[in-house]
Amino acid sequence: MNVTVPGPTLGVVGGGQLGRMLAEAAAPLGVDVIVLDPTPDCPAAPVAREQIVGDFDDPEAFRELASRVDALTFEIELADAALLDRVADEFDLSVHPAPETLETIEDKLVQKRALEDAGVPVPPFRQIDDAEDLRAALDEFGAVMLKARTGGYDGRGNVPVTDPADAEEAMDAVGGPAMAETFVDFARELSVIAVQGDDEVRTFPAGENVHEEEILRETILPARTTDEVLERAEAVARDVLDTLSGRGVFGIELFETEDGEILVNEIAPRPHNSGHWTIEGARTSQFEQHVRAVLGWPLGSTRLRCPTVMANVLGTVEEPQPARLGNVEAVLGDADASLHWYGKDEVRPLRKMGHVTLTGGSELDAAAESDTDELLAHARDVRDALTFE
Amino acid sequence: MNVTVPGPTLGVVGGGQLGRMLAEAAAPLGVDVIVLDPTPDCPAAPVAREQIVGDFDDPEAFRELASRVDALTFEIELADAALLDRVADEFDLSVHPAPETLETIEDKLVQKRALEDAGVPVPPFRQIDDAEDLRAALDEFGAVMLKARTGGYDGRGNVPVTDPADAEEAMDAVGGPAMAETFVDFARELSVIAVQGDDEVRTFPAGENVHEEEILRETILPARTTDEVLERAEAVARDVLDTLSGRGVFGIELFETEDGEILVNEIAPRPHNSGHWTIEGARTSQFEQHVRAVLGWPLGSTRLRCPTVMANVLGTVEEPQPARLGNVEAVLGDADASLHWYGKDEVRPLRKMGHVTLTGGSELDAAAESDTDELLAHARDVRDALTFE
Repeated sequence: MNVTVPGPTLGVVGGGQLGRMLAEAAAPLGVDVIVLDPTPDCPAAPVAREQIVGDFDDPEAFRELASRVDALTFEIELADAALLDRVADEFDLSVHPAPETLETIEDKLVQKRALEDAGVPVPPFRQIDDAEDLRAALDEFGAVMLKARTGGYDGRGNVPVTDPADAEEAMDAVGGPAMAETFVDFARELSVIAVQGDDEVRTFPAGENVHEEEILRETILPARTTDEVLERAEAVARDVLDTLSGRGVFGIELFETEDGEILVNEIAPRPHNSGHWTIEGARTSQFEQHVRAVLGWPLGSTRLRCPTVMANVLGTVEEPQPARLGNVEAVLGDADASLHWYGKDEVRPLRKMGHVTLTGGSELDAAAESDTDELLAHARDVRDALTFE
Repeated sequence: MNVTVPGPTLGVVGGGQLGRMLAEAAAPLGVDVIVLDPTPDCPAAPVAREQIVGDFDDPEAFRELASRVDALTFEIELADAALLDRVADEFDLSVHPAPETLETIEDKLVQKRALEDAGVPVPPFRQIDDAEDLRAALDEFGAVMLKARTGGYDGRGNVPVTDPADAEEAMDAVGGPAMAETFVDFARELSVIAVQGDDEVRTFPAGENVHEEEILRETILPARTTDEVLERAEAVARDVLDTLSGRGVFGIELFETEDGEILVNEIAPRPHNSGHWTIEGARTSQFEQHVRAVLGWPLGSTRLRCPTVMANVLGTVEEPQPARLGNVEAVLGDADASLHWYGKDEVRPLRKMGHVTLTGGSELDAAAESDTDELLAHARDVRDALTFE
C-alpha cells in the first residue's frame, strides 16, 4: 500500500461535528478532507481543507465534491443515497458505506425489517400508516413508541403513545409514514461502535449510554454490566454488520433487557455520538477507523486504554442565542478532562455544542465498578460547571 | 474564562509539521489557526483555517496575519523577532513566547551565555569569530563542536573539529559568526518539554533521545535512567524557563553525563520533535499545551499514559524525489503504532517526513526497562519497514 502526496483526499457529505472530528483524525494520517454542507462555515470547515456549500441533495455540489476527491463518504443520514450512488459511478469513485445501506438505514421500518429478516434480535414493531394501524398496535402491545420512518434524530420524530384516543394527534406529530415499537423494559442501554474494513471487522468495547429525553447525555466505559452481556453485545453487533454493505464505522445502539438479552434499537451508518469516548479512551478513535475503513486501509486497534466517560455539552438555554461558553477553566483546569468544542455559532435548547471526556487511571484491570461511578460523577460535575452566557 | 464562537483564532508564523500538529491540537479546543509560511500549500495548510503565503520577515504578510487573529505565536526560529514584536504592538496583540526570548535563543552564543549567567549548567563554550579563535579553543578543549550562531538546525551549521589545521575550512563551512563547545562525553541524551503558562509551569517526564548524524531518530519514554537523574533534568528545565520570557512550550535538550550530572545542550522556543510522543503518550499533547499556554488558558496534565517510543520517518533517499510512502500497512496494521504523516510534497535525504509512535500496555508501573528496550526495537522495525518509492 502506498500513500502519495498530496492526498488521498476524502470527500465527506455533511460538515457538522462528526465531519469536524473526521477531519481532525484524518490529518495525522496525511489524508485531506473536503466537506459538503449547506451551512456556510459549518463546524468542519476550519479543520477541513475546504467546504463546498450545498444541500445534501444538490447534484451540482455533489459533482463538484466528487471531482476533487479520491473517495466519498457521509456523516449524516440526510445525504441523498441515490445521488451519492450516481455521482460515485459517474466519477468512478468508491463510496462507503454503500448507498444502499444508507437507504436501508434511513427508513427505520426498512432497517428493522432487514435486521429481523437476518435473525438479529429487535423489539417487536409494526408498520403504521394511519391512526387505525396505531390503535391496532396499541391494542396488541399496550403502549408503543411511535417513530417517523425517516428524518428523526435525537428523539425528534418519536412520540410515546399509550391511549388509543391520542392516535390521531400522534400521527399528526410524526407527520408521515411511521412505525411503532413496543417499549423495551431495559436494564441498561449499550452501544457498540463496529467497523467494517476491507476484509476484517473490529468492534470497540461496548459503552453504556445514559439518555434523557431521548438525547444521549453520557457514555461510560467499561459498561457496568457482566462480561457475558458485553460478549453478547459484540456478537449482535457483528451480526448487524453482516446485514449491511460497504466499509466504515457503524454505531449500533442496543438494549440490555432485565434478563440479560440484547435487542438492537437503532443503527447509524457513520461514527456515532456514543463513540466519541474513543478519541482519548481507545487506542484508535472511531473517526480514524472510519477514515481507514473508507479508504480500504488496515484498521487500528480498538483496545480500551483506561476507564473513560464522555459527557455531552448540550445547549442549556431556553431560546437560541449566540454561543458563548463560560467557566471553561472548569474543564481545562481538570487533569483528567479533555474539551471538545464544535465551533457552532448559535446555541439552541439541547443542541449538541461539544463534549467533555474524562479518563481514569491507567491501571485498567484494577478498575472497580465504584471507580467508574466516581468517574461518571466527576464527568457530570465538570460538564455541569460549563455555562452559556 | 469564556470561549466565544467563532474563535479565538491563533496566528502561527511557520506552517511546517509543527504548525500542522498545532492546528490538529487546536481544533478540539474550538481554536482556529491561521499560518504564515513562504511555501504555498505548506504542511499545515490543509488543517489550518487558512495559510497566508509570505516570508518569515515579510512585514505585509505579518500585518495580514495580525489583522485576522486574536493572538500570535511561531513554530520556527527563523521568524523575525523584531517584526513580530512591532506588529503585535501595532495590532495590540499578545505574542508568545516573547520576541526577546526568540532573539536570545536564535543566537546560540547568546543563548548559552544567558543560561551560564543564570547559573544553569552548560558545557564549556567559547565565542569564535575567526580561525584564530577556533585554534585557541582547540588548544584549550582538545576537540570542539563548531556551531554557527544562527540559522543551524538538525545538525546543519555544526562541524566537529579536532585538528587546528582544519580551522580555516571549518570556519568556511559554518560561514559566519560561530561558537565552539567542548564535546560532552555523555551517558545519554535527554530532553524535557516544559510549558510556561499564565502563572504555572508544567514539565513532561524527560524523554531519552537517540540522535544519529545529529538528527533525532527516536525518543523513548520512560527514559532508561534513574529517578534521581529524571528529577534533576526536570529541575534544570524549570531553571531554564526562569531565564526566558513569555508563555508557551519549550523543548530543552540535555546531556546526562557519565556521573549523572545534567548539562543543557540547546533550547527550542516552541514544540519540539522530541515531544511528539506526547500526542499518544501523555494526557495532554505538547501541541495542545502550546495552544493553551499562548492563549493564557489553564495547562493540561503532563502525565505519562504508558511507555511510548516515537520514531522519526526521515527521507531515506539519495536525491530529492516526489514523496511517495510505501508499505504503509506495516504501521497501520500494527496494533500499537500510530502514523503521523506531514504531507510534504518532496522527500529529500534525511528530511523529516513523518513519525511513528508506539505505545506499550496500559500498566505503566509494571513496565520494566526490558519492556522499553522491546518497545524501541518494535518502533524501529515498524518505522524501518516504510519505504520511499
